[in-house]
Parts: sequence; structure tokens; C-alpha cells
Amino acid sequence: MFANFWKKKWIILFNVILLSAVTVFPVFAEEAAITAESNAVAINTVWTLLAAFLVFFMQAGFAMVETGFTRAKNACNIMMKNLMDFSVGSLAYWLIGFGIMFGTSAMGLFGTDGFFLSAADPSTADGLWQFACWMFQAVFAATAATIVSGAMAERTKFGSYLFYGVCITAFIYPVVGHWIWGGGWLAEKGMIDFAGSTVVHSVGGWAALAGALLLGPRLGKYNKDGSSNAIPGHNIPLAALGVFILWFGWFGFNAGSTTSGTNLSIATIAVTTNLAAAAGSIVAMFVTWKKYGKPDLSMALNGALAGLVSITAPCASVSPLSAIIIGAIGGFLVVFSVGFFDKVLKIDDPVGAISVHGVCGAWGTLSAGLFAEAAYGQSSGMGAVNGLFFGGGIGQFMTQLIGVGAVFAWAFIAAFIVFSIAKATIGLRVSDEEQLKGLDIGEHGMEAYSGFQIFTTES
Amino acid sequence: MFANFWKKKWIILFNVILLSAVTVFPVFAEEAAITAESNAVAINTVWTLLAAFLVFFMQAGFAMVETGFTRAKNACNIMMKNLMDFSVGSLAYWLIGFGIMFGTSAMGLFGTDGFFLSAADPSTADGLWQFACWMFQAVFAATAATIVSGAMAERTKFGSYLFYGVCITAFIYPVVGHWIWGGGWLAEKGMIDFAGSTVVHSVGGWAALAGALLLGPRLGKYNKDGSSNAIPGHNIPLAALGVFILWFGWFGFNAGSTTSGTNLSIATIAVTTNLAAAAGSIVAMFVTWKKYGKPDLSMALNGALAGLVSITAPCASVSPLSAIIIGAIGGFLVVFSVGFFDKVLKIDDPVGAISVHGVCGAWGTLSAGLFAEAAYGQSSGMGAVNGLFFGGGIGQFMTQLIGVGAVFAWAFIAAFIVFSIAKATIGLRVSDEEQLKGLDIGEHGMEAYSGFQIFTTES
Amino acid sequence: MFANFWKKKWIILFNVILLSAVTVFPVFAEEAAITAESNAVAINTVWTLLAAFLVFFMQAGFAMVETGFTRAKNACNIMMKNLMDFSVGSLAYWLIGFGIMFGTSAMGLFGTDGFFLSAADPSTADGLWQFACWMFQAVFAATAATIVSGAMAERTKFGSYLFYGVCITAFIYPVVGHWIWGGGWLAEKGMIDFAGSTVVHSVGGWAALAGALLLGPRLGKYNKDGSSNAIPGHNIPLAALGVFILWFGWFGFNAGSTTSGTNLSIATIAVTTNLAAAAGSIVAMFVTWKKYGKPDLSMALNGALAGLVSITAPCASVSPLSAIIIGAIGGFLVVFSVGFFDKVLKIDDPVGAISVHGVCGAWGTLSAGLFAEAAYGQSSGMGAVNGLFFGGGIGQFMTQLIGVGAVFAWAFIAAFIVFSIAKATIGLRVSDEEQLKGLDIGEHGMEAYSGFQIFTTES
Repeated sequence: MFANFWKKKWIILFNVILLSAVTVFPVFAEEAAITAESNAVAINTVWTLLAAFLVFFMQAGFAMVETGFTRAKNACNIMMKNLMDFSVGSLAYWLIGFGIMFGTSAMGLFGTDGFFLSAADPSTADGLWQFACWMFQAVFAATAATIVSGAMAERTKFGSYLFYGVCITAFIYPVVGHWIWGGGWLAEKGMIDFAGSTVVHSVGGWAALAGALLLGPRLGKYNKDGSSNAIPGHNIPLAALGVFILWFGWFGFNAGSTTSGTNLSIATIAVTTNLAAAAGSIVAMFVTWKKYGKPDLSMALNGALAGLVSITAPCASVSPLSAIIIGAIGGFLVVFSVGFFDKVLKIDDPVGAISVHGVCGAWGTLSAGLFAEAAYGQSSGMGAVNGLFFGGGIGQFMTQLIGVGAVFAWAFIAAFIVFSIAKATIGLRVSDEEQLKGLDIGEHGMEAYSGFQIFTTES
Repeated sequence: MFANFWKKKWIILFNVILLSAVTVFPVFAEEAAITAESNAVAINTVWTLLAAFLVFFMQAGFAMVETGFTRAKNACNIMMKNLMDFSVGSLAYWLIGFGIMFGTSAMGLFGTDGFFLSAADPSTADGLWQFACWMFQAVFAATAATIVSGAMAERTKFGSYLFYGVCITAFIYPVVGHWIWGGGWLAEKGMIDFAGSTVVHSVGGWAALAGALLLGPRLGKYNKDGSSNAIPGHNIPLAALGVFILWFGWFGFNAGSTTSGTNLSIATIAVTTNLAAAAGSIVAMFVTWKKYGKPDLSMALNGALAGLVSITAPCASVSPLSAIIIGAIGGFLVVFSVGFFDKVLKIDDPVGAISVHGVCGAWGTLSAGLFAEAAYGQSSGMGAVNGLFFGGGIGQFMTQLIGVGAVFAWAFIAAFIVFSIAKATIGLRVSDEEQLKGLDIGEHGMEAYSGFQIFTTES
Repeated sequence: MFANFWKKKWIILFNVILLSAVTVFPVFAEEAAITAESNAVAINTVWTLLAAFLVFFMQAGFAMVETGFTRAKNACNIMMKNLMDFSVGSLAYWLIGFGIMFGTSAMGLFGTDGFFLSAADPSTADGLWQFACWMFQAVFAATAATIVSGAMAERTKFGSYLFYGVCITAFIYPVVGHWIWGGGWLAEKGMIDFAGSTVVHSVGGWAALAGALLLGPRLGKYNKDGSSNAIPGHNIPLAALGVFILWFGWFGFNAGSTTSGTNLSIATIAVTTNLAAAAGSIVAMFVTWKKYGKPDLSMALNGALAGLVSITAPCASVSPLSAIIIGAIGGFLVVFSVGFFDKVLKIDDPVGAISVHGVCGAWGTLSAGLFAEAAYGQSSGMGAVNGLFFGGGIGQFMTQLIGVGAVFAWAFIAAFIVFSIAKATIGLRVSDEEQLKGLDIGEHGMEAYSGFQIFTTES
């Protein structure tokens, strides 16, 4: 197993060459040979782990964004969900998910071994590298899981959310991960999804869509005539803090996805990531300014996230200018997509997770087929691919399209089944009475802001 | 001095070999020789510093947890304590603590030189390495200091807290550090405390116990019949943010404790740290679910911290599965320990610091004597030790037990003396009137949430 | 261009040597030569990028400090400003600023090429290094921009702030950057400003002074008799969190300014940075304790920032003891400077940005001329300079003084012109009615704390 360990063939070769040259180090320091190869492995391990820590911290960002954009009476429940999807996700991904994602492939569909890190021998350099990779992959799995929380906020039974958290990190996410990053059928086709616009964000977004559909809207969200009410969030500074944390962690998410600090394209990836986020937030702000007469902070924040999600797939394959365009389109899309789901489809998504992660994830993945440039992809190891706009023909775009479609089908259907099981057994939705009082009291018997005078909306 | 500089002999050898091979670099870049050895030193320095920055950031985590779990009227006081224990701690550890911890040993009890970094010559590679080590050690000292703040929250005079902050970072903590990490008598016995379950957390926890005992409970905490009242925290989202920050920083705390990025076991340490935290939070959540009928967020958050504290000693010596068990037991312990201190011993500890850091710190240290496996310890440099459950006999466990007991005696007694001096001079406890109005007004003449309507509990 | 790429000549040599030795890596991994030189480049790239991420995160710190110290009714506006100065700043610095700062010099005054990263070829090691440098420089530009936000809080039209954000990152800041870091006339004179006490902080502080002057005070700030009212902040725990985040990020700001992880003086820089911050907060606390009878948290927090700003210029040239003195004087200065601007000059600066960044930035820059020691500067690459107190004569101090004065004149006048244009066109100040209701409603049509009972001060 792990012959197909990472995303692109050159990394396999790279690591096989490097790791075979390294004696386990520093068991006996006086004997350990310090070589250029052992140093390169150390640089890669340090980089991968630090990036993993940054991605872990994104959990705090998601928690703050979700709680800031919702009501005070559900804040404890939201914290609990965000703590627990990471915790149960870590164990589920250790026990099952990692093997399904990176184990020996069964027909390009899923992995079949390497469960609970059983193949990682801590007395070899190769085994230690597998530990580092697990750490990096585990925080990605938990990111996919936590995206759903926001779309289902303020009305979901906690037990059902726990059940879902296990299913997505153990099965739904790792299967997609295997297809694209674990040497599966989409990897074979040459699909570009460097850091997971599709693998992580769209999977989360489409699972969120399935959940929100089955769950129904919050009480008071829609009027008898079908019109939609805005339900304002209770702590916008926390939401903004969350976005800053996410942006910070995203540098680890994208640039860390080289899993190599000796791959100097980490620099271009950081630049494209930053510029796309900036462009997304600016465009979303101006669109709301034009549309509503005032620049809207919630949308500007979501625009930054839209830019980040969009650039996640192509970040290692495009130029700074293309990154700005990709992020700007993400920021444009998110405003209209949020309106479309809210007002047309009447799906209640309190934080806009379906639009930010699902729709922009799809857009970002497709954009790699349009904007990829060989000079960028080659130095990052993503291959000398040119997209449609750079003379590469329609081929890469079609591959991207197939990937987007297949992952939508899988993630949506699989999550639909999981939430249907939850609905039929534990129950998916809390009682109306509990929803009115708030889930903090109902699910956890506590409140978030003891001592503060808070007006609970009667809806 | 510094012959016994770091935790394990191999690191000494390693550094002596490496550092002697490095010319001071890059004073004259055109002459500086770039070698595998100089790169290894750079990797280790970069890793150690970045880990130190992460550990520094834990100060924000502690501040958020403590303020979130207490009342709004004391939030400024809590911020001030957390800012100041780090600030005075930095100066005290620079002036005195570091020398006591790592200076030339007086009978294995304490160090006697190296005060105010006097031995660190910035024009040598060895001197620069000492600066890096000081930075890493200073943030650890401040962590030990800040633990006490939570247990003594909402009723302690600020001046006394300042006095205590100097004493623990200058004397109490460095003495234990010398015993275990500075080549002292417990190091000689081969005690395992890789990142400080005992050195940092138990020291903080037992000092907290002494302080809380001398201080007495908050007004309204206990009824005439001896029963205990819950005093809910005012900002649970901030407390949750604090736990996420602590978890994030803990990766630096544990994996950084190699002080070497070329030691590839940083990968296994990150994994064991993460899994133990996850297991701790899950178990604490299920225990409260079973016990009270609803899953409790405060305990789930404390469970994550309990898992982290527990794995801190054995993180470099155990397998992922053992880490899960160790963390799970930590999560179990913390629920009952908090109840025991609160309801049986009637010691008022607003955030559960004694249980999280003292009790779980002791458990984690002992667990290394049970779960250590040679394959893990050897690759991390902690030695090829097997614990009781892996065929290693009772010896290591007894060593751990001696260490836990000795440190309890020292830290509790020393802190008891310090707080007794404070009580007899400055006074330890604010007046009842000030406690009712809040320490923000009483100690600092300001309030935390100007403009918000807040109901101050009349207790 | 870029012949004068980084601050000090040795870095040019260093990089030319290193980069020329590195084949682009890892385009074809099986062919890439892993050498000590390629590893050194990787270490430097990893270090520079991680430091850039930390500096990015300071944006969250500034946002939290500013919102915590002001009123709830303006919190969304403050988040929007902080999000947008970074976003528009990133694009403006990419398009224009970077070229002006580091392009081929026109008479030592400004750069003339290298706009929109046009000179950075991603298929060469040198080009990838330029991307890394851009990332590091962009977050610095945005830091200079965001400083102004606090001084102009609670009364500035959002459109004018956006306009200003573009001007400072495209022109005002890069010109100073060119003078001191881009090989311009102050670099030629040998001015010491390692990480930007002047380049970043004073530029921001003096621009803030110009803005606050033109804008006038908040309603209710000054009475008819000229006396000043304190307007308390609404969320002090967030402000404290912001300071912890800034301190955390500052390690990247200062130690990252080596842009080299193989430059081992990153260790001394981290130490001096930390000790100065600690000393600044302690001194500010004691000064207020003496002055007002109680230790003031707001000032202690500002004292930490004052220490950090002060040490930013000399951090790579001074000893730990000197750092403590420099930081302590910064903490002392900030208390009196805040009072002076507030009560004597009657300039309303809600968060003390002019004092913290402008005044302490000037002090820190001058302090390098007093406290520099050859042993520290030499190992960091800042040159073997001794300041006045270490036998070096008055020369370096005079150079520092010229730099401080020239930058004051440029930044103040340029910002004054920019804000005058904004005032004459868009308008600088919101209506009194809007100011009373709050800018969240007025500028953005939303509120920050929906559901909470908040008393809006009638001033």
C-alpha cells in the first residue's frame, strides 16, 4: 500500500528516493548521518506538520463563523458540534477513513488496507512520514465534516449530528479522497484538485445541501407567502474573527498541500491563495453595495471564503492574475448563489455553507481547466497542463467537469442516505418548542451568555 | 554549564556535534559555509522557535477559557492576570528561573548559573541556540504560572497574584524543571515527562490547589448545608475558542519539545497528541450524557484539555492506540475529579484547573510507566523503554510514581508558603463588597462590556 | 531590478550564491539535485512564508483591539474596515506598491519596475523566491494600512477609508519602504530599521495623525470647557485577545524579517521581541497604578504593543537587557503620549494608535542608535554597529533621527493630502445623526449584536 501515496507521481518518486536515503534519525544521535537527503525529509515533515496545525486551527474559524452568524440561544450547541465533529472525526478517520482513502485500491474506487495506522512503523523514516501524512489528512477530513454544521444550524438534534460526523469522516469523504488523491479513477484521468475545492469543500457543501433539504427551514424563516426573512446573527465580531482565522489557516491548507517545504512553489501558492481571497471579498462587497445600496459585511466575509474555496483546486496551477479573476468570480457567485438557495429554492442555510463550499468549490475546480498554465503547474509538480484559456484545449475542463459531477452525485446521495437513516432512527430535527427556547437549553442544559440580557426572537 | 542542557543525553551529543560544525552564520554570507550540519541546526532552530510561538499563543487560550467560564464582572481582572503572569514571568524567568532550571547542578536539586542569559554569546552558534532554548523554555514557565489563575478566579487580590507570578516562574517551576529536564535527580532516575505533564501542568495544578485552599470559595458558591451551587460562565463561545487555541498551541508544546525538527518523531507526537485530545473530549461528553441526561459542553471542553494534559508526558513514547486510551481515561477522570473537589472537598475551582492540570497531569505521567513502547521512545530519543503493559516490568511506573509524589510535595508546599506570605502581607482575598461588585471595578476601575445590560448575580 | 532586493547587502550576496546553485525544484523530482544549497533555500522559503502567515494573522489582532476598545454600535464597520484594508491593500500592493518599493531605483526615491509581479518567473528558483518575498512584504503593507483605522474609528465614512487604503498601500508606504528597505537614500545612509518601527508603524501612526486631525473628534468626546471624556470600549476581552494575537504575530513580524531561517539570529530576535513586550506592559501598568491608584488594563495592553513597536527597529541589533530597557521606555512613553494627544492636543484617537505606532515607532528607531551592539548586529547581518551607549558615537543616532524626521514629513504630508482629497470629494466624516445611531446601521445596514440589550451612549 501507499505506493500511490500522494496526489502526483513525482511525489512518490521524490519520497521513495529521499526516504530510502535516510537512516532512522536520531535514535542514536552519535551515529545518525546528517545528509542533504535527511535534511530534506526533515524540512518536508516540519512543513507538513505546521501546515496541519494551521488547518486544525480552522476548526476554531468555522466555529466562530457559524456561531457569529446565528442566534445566541444556539451558541453552545454550535460549539459542541464543532468540537465533536473534529473529535469523532479524528478517531473515525484513524480507524477507517485513512485506509479507505489511501489503502490499496479496489478498482480505483476505495482503499482496502492501512486502517488505524497499522502500516506505519515508527522505527523507519517511511513510517514516520506516514504519521505526518495522517496528521495532515485528518485535519482535512474534519474540515469536510464541519462544513455541514453551519447549513444545519439551529434546528438539528445533536445525536444525529454525531452520527453524521462519523459517517462523513469514515466513508463519504475518504471515498472521494481516494478517487482524486489516493490514486483512484479521477486521479487516473488527471483531474486537478490541488488542495481540495472538490475533495473537501464540495463534499462538505453537497452533504450540507442534503442535510438542509431533509431538515427543513428554521421556524420563522419563511412566511406563508413564501417570502424569506433574514435572521440576523448575534455576534458579528466573532464571525469576522472566524474568517480571519480561516484565511490564516488556509495558507496551511493550500500551501501545505505540497506536503513538501522543499517544493518552492509553496510561495506561488501562498500568493494565489491570498489574492483570490482578497478579490472575492472586494467583489462580494461591491456587488452588495450596488444591489442593496450599502456594502454588506456578512457578504464581504463570505466573499473572502468564496475566494479561498475557489482557489483551493487551482492554487498551484495558475498565475496571480488568474487567481484574482477566479477569486473575483467566486465572490460574485456567492452573493447570487446565497440568494438563489434562500429565495428561489427556499433551502434554509443559516451561514451560506452550500454556496460558499459547494458552489464555489465546483467553480474553483472547473476554473483549473480554464486558467491552468504549464509554467505554474510544472514547478509545483501538478504537471505542465494548460487550461482552455491558455491554449490547452477543452480536455482538462471536461475532466474537471466529470469530477465535479461525479463527486456531487456521490456526496449528495451518500449524505442523503446517512441523514435519512438518522431521521428514521434518532430523529433529525428538534421539537418546535426546543427550537424556540434554543438548543443550548434543549440539547445541553446550559446557556452561552449567562448574565446578559438577551431578547430571544419568538420565531 | 549547559552540559546537561536538554532532557536526554543524545540531544546533548547531537547538539555538540552539530553546533561545533557550524561557523557563525551568516555574518559574512560570502564566506559562510552552507553544510548539511548548518542546515540541520537551522531546521532545529526554526522548529523550536515556531513551536515556542505556538506555546506563547496558549496564553490567549488560557485567558479565553478562564474568562468564558466565569462572570462578566471579573473579565478585565482575568485578562490582566493572564497578561501579567506572562509578562512578569518572562522577566523573572530571564533573570532567575532559567539559571535555576538549566544551570550547573547543585546536588541535582537546582541550577546555580546562567542567569539573565549571561552565558549566551550571540556570536557563536552555541550561544544562538541557547537563545532559542530560552525562548522555548520561557513560554513553558509562563504556562505553569497561568494555570493557577483559573482556580483562584473572581476573588483574588491582583497584587498577590503578581507576587505569586514572580515566585512560580523564578523558583517553584524551575526547581522541578531542573529535577526532570535539567539533569537533576529525577532525570538521573530516568523519569519520563517528555513535554511536561508533571513539570508544567501538575506544578500549576498543585499550586492552584494550595491557592484555592488558602483563598476559600467565592461568595455564594456553597450553601449553609454544604451543598454546592453552579456559577455559570458568561461567555461560552470565548471559552470554546480558548480550548481550540490551546489545542492548536499544544501541537507546539508537545511536538516542539523535541526542540529538533530533524527528529522525525515529531510526526508521531502530533498524532498521539491529537488522538488523546479527541478521546478525552468524547469520553467526557458521554460520561456527562450518561450522568446528567444531556451532553455537557463545559465538560467536553475540559475533557479535551484533560486528554491533552494526560498525553503530554507520554506523547513521545506511546502508540496511537495507547494515546487514545490515555486520553480517554483523562476525560473520564476529569469529570469525577471536578465533582470530587467541588462537592466532597468543597474547594472552589471555577474552571476545574486542579483537576485538568493537577490530576490529569499526574495520571499522564503515570501512564508513561504503563504504556511506553520501545519502538516509539527509541525513535523519539526518549529511550527504548517498555512500560508495565508492554513487558517492561514495574520499574518505570515506580519511577514515575516517585516523580509525581515528589513534585506534588514540592509544588504544593512551596506554593502554600508563597500564598501564605501573600495572605499575611498584601492580603489574598478581596473584600466581600468588591467581590459582589466585581473585580473589574474593584481592582482596575473599569468594566469589560460597557453598554451591555448585564445582571450581576447577587452572590 | 531586485539587485537591491533586501535590506542588507549580505542578503543579496547570500541569495545570489544560493539561488544560482539551485535547479528549479522539484519539476522533475527524479532529476532534482538535493543539495545543502537547495535545502538552505527551502528553509528560508518555509521560514519566510510561515512568518508571513503570522503577520497576516495580526490583521485579526488589530480588528479585535479596535473593536474591543470602541462601542458596540460601530463593531461591524470596524470589521469591514479591517477586512477591506487588507483586501484592497493586497491588490494595490500587487499592482503598484511592490514595484515602487523594490523596483529599480529612481534617484533613491522610489522604484520604477516589477509591478504586478511581472518579473517573477515561476520556473526559476529566483522567481519563486520573489513570490515568497512579495507575500512577506504584502502583509507588512497591510499592517501599515490598518493602523490608521483605530485612530479614525467611529466617525469615518467607509468610502473614504477604502480610498485611503489604496493610497497607503500603493504609494505612501512603498515610498518609505524603498527609502529604507529597497536600497533608497536612507538605506544608503545605513539607517537601522530591521522590521519596521519606522517603515511600518510610524508611517501608519503619522498617517493616523493626519486623518484624526482632519476628521475631528467623536461627538461627546470633548466638553465645552475643553475637558475630555473617556468613552469606554464595549468588549475588553476581545481587545485583550487582539493583543495576544498581535504579540503572537509579532514573532513573525520581527524574527521573520531575516527572511532567512538559516540566519540563526532569529533566536535572539524572538527573545528581544518578547522581553520588550513584557517590559512595556509591566511599566505601563505600574505607571497607571501610581498615577490613577489602580492598574489599568487598557494601558497595560497598549504598553505591550508599545514595547513591541519600540523593539521592531532594533530587535536584531541589541541585547536582551537593552530590549527590556527599550520596551520599558516604550511602555512609559505610551501612557503620557496618549494623555498628551487626548488632553493637550485634543486629538481624538480612540485606541491610541498615534501614540503606540507613531510615537513608539519613532522612539524604537532612535533607540537603535543608542543601544546597538556589534555582536548582535553582526550575527544578524545588520552590521557591526555600536550605538551611542556602546561606544559608537553619535553618528548612528543622527542617521536614525534623520530617518525618523524625513518619514514623519513624508507620511504626514502625503496622508494629509490623501485625506484632504477624500474630504473634498467623498466626504470624510459621517453625519452626526449617523454617528449617534452607529456606523453599523448607517454605513452597512446591520448590527453587530442582534438580540443583546445594548445602551447606546447618547453622545
